[in-house]
Amino acid sequence: MKKFSELDATELAQIRGSLMQRYRAFQAQAMNLDMTRGKPCPEQLDLSLGLLTCLDKTDILTASGTDCRNYGGVDGIPEAKNLFAQYLEVDPEEIIIGGNSSLTMMHDTFMRAMLKGVEPQTPPWVQLPEVKFLCPSPGYDRHFFICEYLGIKMIPVKMNAEGPDMDQVETLVASDESIKGIWCVPLYSNPTAAVYSDTVIDRLASMKTRAKDFRIFCDNAYAVHHLDSYRPKVKNMLAACKQAGNPDRVFLFGSTSKITFAGAGIAMMAGSKKTMARARKQINIQTIGPDKLNQLRHVKFFKTTAGIKTHMAKHAAIIKPKFDAILSGLEKELGGKQIAWWTRPKGGYFISLDILPGCATAVVRMAAEAGVKLTPAGSTFPYGKDPDDCNIRLAPTFPDLEDIRSAIELVGICIQLVSIERNVA
Amino acid sequence: MKKFSELDATELAQIRGSLMQRYRAFQAQAMNLDMTRGKPCPEQLDLSLGLLTCLDKTDILTASGTDCRNYGGVDGIPEAKNLFAQYLEVDPEEIIIGGNSSLTMMHDTFMRAMLKGVEPQTPPWVQLPEVKFLCPSPGYDRHFFICEYLGIKMIPVKMNAEGPDMDQVETLVASDESIKGIWCVPLYSNPTAAVYSDTVIDRLASMKTRAKDFRIFCDNAYAVHHLDSYRPKVKNMLAACKQAGNPDRVFLFGSTSKITFAGAGIAMMAGSKKTMARARKQINIQTIGPDKLNQLRHVKFFKTTAGIKTHMAKHAAIIKPKFDAILSGLEKELGGKQIAWWTRPKGGYFISLDILPGCATAVVRMAAEAGVKLTPAGSTFPYGKDPDDCNIRLAPTFPDLEDIRSAIELVGICIQLVSIERNVA
Repeated sequence: MKKFSELDATELAQIRGSLMQRYRAFQAQAMNLDMTRGKPCPEQLDLSLGLLTCLDKTDILTASGTDCRNYGGVDGIPEAKNLFAQYLEVDPEEIIIGGNSSLTMMHDTFMRAMLKGVEPQTPPWVQLPEVKFLCPSPGYDRHFFICEYLGIKMIPVKMNAEGPDMDQVETLVASDESIKGIWCVPLYSNPTAAVYSDTVIDRLASMKTRAKDFRIFCDNAYAVHHLDSYRPKVKNMLAACKQAGNPDRVFLFGSTSKITFAGAGIAMMAGSKKTMARARKQINIQTIGPDKLNQLRHVKFFKTTAGIKTHMAKHAAIIKPKFDAILSGLEKELGGKQIAWWTRPKGGYFISLDILPGCATAVVRMAAEAGVKLTPAGSTFPYGKDPDDCNIRLAPTFPDLEDIRSAIELVGICIQLVSIERNVA
Repeated sequence: MKKFSELDATELAQIRGSLMQRYRAFQAQAMNLDMTRGKPCPEQLDLSLGLLTCLDKTDILTASGTDCRNYGGVDGIPEAKNLFAQYLEVDPEEIIIGGNSSLTMMHDTFMRAMLKGVEPQTPPWVQLPEVKFLCPSPGYDRHFFICEYLGIKMIPVKMNAEGPDMDQVETLVASDESIKGIWCVPLYSNPTAAVYSDTVIDRLASMKTRAKDFRIFCDNAYAVHHLDSYRPKVKNMLAACKQAGNPDRVFLFGSTSKITFAGAGIAMMAGSKKTMARARKQINIQTIGPDKLNQLRHVKFFKTTAGIKTHMAKHAAIIKPKFDAILSGLEKELGGKQIAWWTRPKGGYFISLDILPGCATAVVRMAAEAGVKLTPAGSTFPYGKDPDDCNIRLAPTFPDLEDIRSAIELVGICIQLVSIERNVA
């Protein structure tokens, strides 16, 4: 296919006419399809139905005799700590198992940092004239919402294929004491599916920060969420921080939201023993303990990390065809036209699509008007503002395969139409 | 039995000798009994075993078709909102169903008040030179821990049989703008089992407060936790606040921790529509939604508030004999001696025991040395400091009946011994 920029006016008008026809046909179809969020589909959730029935009255005690129905155990049951410590590649003493949401654990860690500081001897962030955070972008909107809510100034940092642009990161943190941290999703980053290189991880762990209380909020949301047999080995952020002599620099987070049930999984956080000891003490003010029965369910259901891996292969079998359908749809509609560039993820939950500057909002609106809701343009950037208005996050997992095929054809049509109208014509 | 104060030295020495003999016999027995917390006993937890198996793969949707396994629904599923709105006597739009802990919802409400204020137009409490809270005492230690953690200055207020001393409360809140709220447990208050009178509730709802952003943190922890057929009718705090023209004055909290599973129940908060709309928006930053499956379990298990009431009668049948054993043990050891006074609760989880000033710490220590751990003396007061060192909280529910009988005999012996040594002799 020819590049759009090489087409003459007549050719473009002709293409535009035929695209408009196809677009109107989609409008007439009145689809009602929601691709806004990275939600598992029902078939994925069905994989974990065993969780609903794996406990009965004979399974209410931990090995050490704790009744999981009763109060107590602020940082989780030992069985869950053991299993998910392996999952996050940390020591059981370095992990806290929480409720159903790792976002909650991140949010609460920020709330505590604001009011109490991240260490006893560093000031509460709320007492400082300004707190800033580095936000590799495109990134995860819900991370950014937390910062925005708390008045933490977000500084976008360029996201490369191997992680954030470390030259930019190092320069910023070395000079500005008010920069207190960075958001990271080290494996299959949301939404670009970038995999952090060892170099990036080591530079994050060892870089000189002007702020003594600088923290990496490392959301390992997709630790086992591979789409095929490719298994990137990502260096563990806590191990790297320890190695670099900065053991307290990182808060690690994870959950089973996209392993078992998105709404009823279990969440976890990890960090150095010192970091966790303080968190445990603070969480003890907040709760008498997490839902230990749900932790026991998960332990019983998976037994081992091998059990988790086997389970994840079943997820891949369901969602890989959806990723493939999007990729081939994009190729078919947009390949070679030099108006769109997209990631080819090996895991995670998203395909990140860049189109010509100034076009994303219009494309998302146009798709919505024909019945396909995409993630709002700009969502992947701090404050919901994509400076180039070019990034669109595609979430392939939830809709069924047929709908995906239609949706991506429609998106391809919208991109071409908007590109012709805005940039090329 | 004669009052201790009327005994002469010889009589006291004789009594002391025989008590010491009995105390030593307990020491030799080496009991190991924990009565520190208001924990349900295994038999109580067994009443809710049906929760473990009441969901299967056919029960994952709400009536409106929401998949409870997936993300979403930040304030709970409609079925749970309906059921527990009736439970808390509020409108379904006035309630948010959360995770497994109402303490967490209280803590988080404080965190948000500190950082964002309780209304958009009132300042974050953290920006004020001082924030104070009224703490009817004796009260619940975990309420007090939240204030202490956040540097909120606690002002103890006298707790009467019909609720806090309202003359004291009204005088304080009318003159001091830094007093931002009060803790309340309106029914079967922890630990005195006081039941707030309508007058107290109406005065709390209508009193003039110097602070515009004054809030009642109303922990309705024992709304259906009756011990016998007595059913006190407590005026609803939200209804009273609305009636008084202060609809936004109250945050209501509740949970099923002492109805189903103490560690794996569901928690709720309620307030005016305006209050809840803001909370919902803020909670939406913290989580994509609570564990909806556990909410569905609870709805399916109870169906109606009548179901909850029937269930609670089974709890009463288990724990009333334990309360009775303590009461008769206290009467037997201490009756008429004028060295101890205790509550005779009609519900809730505790018996509150007052002994002669300056004796509580010594009694708790002495009981521990013979193998019975009681709630630490002072726990029921702000900062863990009982000014008279006279209050002991007894938690009858967890130990079995035989242990309760032994424990209370031992406690009675310790109280007599300490009274003789410290105050009478």
